[in-house]
Amino acid sequence: MSKNDDKPGQGPDNSRPKARLPKGLLDSSTQEIRATEAMLATIKSVFELYGFEPLATPAIEYTDALGKFLPDEDRPNSGVFSFQDDDEQWLSLRYDLTAPLARFVAENYQRLPKPFRRYQTGPVWRNEKPGPGRFRQFMQFDADTVGAPSVAADAELCMLAADTMEALGIPRGDYVVKVNSRKILDGVLDSIGVEEGRRLTVLRAIDKLDRLGEEGVRLLLSDGRKDESGDFTKGAGLAAGDIDKVIASTCPLSGGNDAILEELAQISNSEVGAEGIEELKTIAALDEAGGYADRVLIDPSIVRGLEYYTGPVFETELTQTIKDQRGQTIRLGSVMSGGRYDGLVARFTGERVPATGISVGVSRLLFGLQLLGKYKGDDAQGPVVVLVFDKDRLGDYQLMVQTLREAGLRAELYLGSSGMKAQMKYADKRGSPCAIIQGGDEKERAEVQIKDLALGATLSKIEDREEYLKKRAEAQFAVPEAELVAGVRKVLDRYKA
Amino acid sequence: MSKNDDKPGQGPDNSRPKARLPKGLLDSSTQEIRATEAMLATIKSVFELYGFEPLATPAIEYTDALGKFLPDEDRPNSGVFSFQDDDEQWLSLRYDLTAPLARFVAENYQRLPKPFRRYQTGPVWRNEKPGPGRFRQFMQFDADTVGAPSVAADAELCMLAADTMEALGIPRGDYVVKVNSRKILDGVLDSIGVEEGRRLTVLRAIDKLDRLGEEGVRLLLSDGRKDESGDFTKGAGLAAGDIDKVIASTCPLSGGNDAILEELAQISNSEVGAEGIEELKTIAALDEAGGYADRVLIDPSIVRGLEYYTGPVFETELTQTIKDQRGQTIRLGSVMSGGRYDGLVARFTGERVPATGISVGVSRLLFGLQLLGKYKGDDAQGPVVVLVFDKDRLGDYQLMVQTLREAGLRAELYLGSSGMKAQMKYADKRGSPCAIIQGGDEKERAEVQIKDLALGATLSKIEDREEYLKKRAEAQFAVPEAELVAGVRKVLDRYKA
Repeated sequence: MSKNDDKPGQGPDNSRPKARLPKGLLDSSTQEIRATEAMLATIKSVFELYGFEPLATPAIEYTDALGKFLPDEDRPNSGVFSFQDDDEQWLSLRYDLTAPLARFVAENYQRLPKPFRRYQTGPVWRNEKPGPGRFRQFMQFDADTVGAPSVAADAELCMLAADTMEALGIPRGDYVVKVNSRKILDGVLDSIGVEEGRRLTVLRAIDKLDRLGEEGVRLLLSDGRKDESGDFTKGAGLAAGDIDKVIASTCPLSGGNDAILEELAQISNSEVGAEGIEELKTIAALDEAGGYADRVLIDPSIVRGLEYYTGPVFETELTQTIKDQRGQTIRLGSVMSGGRYDGLVARFTGERVPATGISVGVSRLLFGLQLLGKYKGDDAQGPVVVLVFDKDRLGDYQLMVQTLREAGLRAELYLGSSGMKAQMKYADKRGSPCAIIQGGDEKERAEVQIKDLALGATLSKIEDREEYLKKRAEAQFAVPEAELVAGVRKVLDRYKA
Repeated sequence: MSKNDDKPGQGPDNSRPKARLPKGLLDSSTQEIRATEAMLATIKSVFELYGFEPLATPAIEYTDALGKFLPDEDRPNSGVFSFQDDDEQWLSLRYDLTAPLARFVAENYQRLPKPFRRYQTGPVWRNEKPGPGRFRQFMQFDADTVGAPSVAADAELCMLAADTMEALGIPRGDYVVKVNSRKILDGVLDSIGVEEGRRLTVLRAIDKLDRLGEEGVRLLLSDGRKDESGDFTKGAGLAAGDIDKVIASTCPLSGGNDAILEELAQISNSEVGAEGIEELKTIAALDEAGGYADRVLIDPSIVRGLEYYTGPVFETELTQTIKDQRGQTIRLGSVMSGGRYDGLVARFTGERVPATGISVGVSRLLFGLQLLGKYKGDDAQGPVVVLVFDKDRLGDYQLMVQTLREAGLRAELYLGSSGMKAQMKYADKRGSPCAIIQGGDEKERAEVQIKDLALGATLSKIEDREEYLKKRAEAQFAVPEAELVAGVRKVLDRYKA
């Protein structure tokens, strides 16, 4: 780039576009990508072990096929990116991976094995107000079982969550899978006569228990709540006695699974409530049979903010204290959650198809794992860089690169137009283990110089002369051209993990 | 799904959406996904070996930042999916990975290593009329070097294409990387006075040489051409003598690289034409030095249909005869192509940043490889399925599944509600190697039955009684509960590749 007073992308010429991204969208760095890929590969291996098979659906679907299930329905556009096709039909970018799955199952029901067990990973898009940790494109990783009426399928997803956490390096005891049934709350809402229209408001209020605490939730269940910024959220308008009942059925109770189930049986004693308790009993028994009793816990505060759940719901939390870079404790929230949604396929077919699924919040989980020192993505090494000492001898240098690549070593020719100093800087910036140099003298002796960049950087700190000379000889040494690969391997071996 | 006269997704109730995808969009099957992932992993390993680093940009960009470089500009919307943000600014889905790279480089130029070498893979979207093999979402895999003025960077991308083909299992001699410089044609167009506006029409005409032949291209260079469907494409309006010159500079010439270069020097003898010939000479010399002389060939018919290329352009073709399922020979076209685009970053900054890149057409390449018998994605085995003989003993069966998973074996519990026959069918449909059964009798003896599904399917064809009994014993056998894992491994070992 030649010198110029204009800053890149901000030239005074208005006909030039500015180089920038829309808010809430991000580029991912090499390290983030490597870390994400490593984490996704681990998650995938666990999902595969459980017998789930991959499926991929496109990013774009008909708007009516996706439906409107986002919690953020107050805003225009309902949080979805939509646009019209040539034939005026509305299309949308998927906002999750569950709605496309329901469309896929309804479209292909006859030919699918039943139950149908699939996993899918990919980006989803939300046309929402971006904020800290809240983006308009993010990644999900879902596993779903469709066509399984038994809550054994839900119990299995709880085990899957536990095994995924352990495969990612979270030791037993440092995570918990919390499970509840939406039917417990449904039973209470039935008994106090809360009609369909207000139920989502109640759900979303309770979903905020961990963030707002009981007092905040009570406000949201009654007239409403003003947050720190002064924004007012209208409440569900429940009477005080009814709020007590809702709170009693959802606030964390003490004791183990058995004690909680007994207490819930007192509170949610309608028919649907009893069904919910029966479901939780079965899940607890199956998870115990599989050896997960201490890791999958019944927690009535888990309700999930999405309206479409019809039975068991689950969330996974890391229980270790997680601190950010400034030492502040972070409330990470759930990293893997889901539930049963027996009505989603029926939207298309009119016929109820039982289904349950779980979704990894990929960015949030990676964020948490990285704060715990895992999946940093910084263990990959840059390529060996063959420097261009003499521009007329590019062919010779190209052959060296070729020789290294044929030996399976990551290597590249310096392709810029700068001098030796800038070339060394480039190799540093790329994280190269070593640079290869061949000037006229070396060429005459049929040798190449190998420069260990990490070791070279430490030389200036060595005070002892003998030590300095020894290290300097290690940091840059000549080998015959024919021993280029062996020489490079010698340096690489110094930094093997 | 309960019985019902309505077909799924086509119920008479109009309030229900139909389960269907917009045209030109596809779901991918398990096999396609496994095949694609295996192929992408191979491509990635070669790109990494060359020193490229991963970058990921979001799917959505500002429309003005992406620019309009698609060849299909006759249609409204210019082939891009676009929508307005809350603040009325236009957003678009990326139509390739090059335009977002130019935006990224312009935005982050100061902090990037120069040259900046990145690879990126992901879906791109085109709002075009879909047709056979032409979709509205498809995958690309790009490698680009930004900030390298030397055509050594272009020569390297040609080598990268060759090495990628060989890593994918295409033997030397069964592919060719064709290289040309856009400057050769630019020189001719300069000399015959074709102004900017008509150049894209000329480019797109020549880009169709392999499909339409010389006669078809001559029509597109003169008044126009009517295709088989009767659609008329307006031509570039060149005079007959000028068409001869354009054809002479682009039609495949005979002889090796040296002979072609000599002939081109006669035809494209302007200053810019001479530059192009010089570029091709350097590329040929470098590729020869790297040992690629027989695989990277100069071919003046390669021009690429995109306007933004400024220098070398390249395409990769599989030269083996490829036949489709019906035995028809397929013209696959280029599977990995690109070129130099020194002006793309300057769109933002006003300052020219040299850049060159190559892109794998992922679907097309996979299609070709599969027709050649590679990357079929059918070597993955389904999970071991533990059948549910007795619904009251789910916990016992769950524990068997758990035991298999802990041994690293893909396994699942049958989660549907059907009887044993349907369960066996399910295991078949999932491609399970074996099913596990424990009825009351086996439970009493603390045994499990292991049923080899592939072997079981062959039994009915065995006529010899002794052979039949022997195979039947192999196809289903009992082991003590404690030897479940060993028993399953015995079956798996029979089908190891």
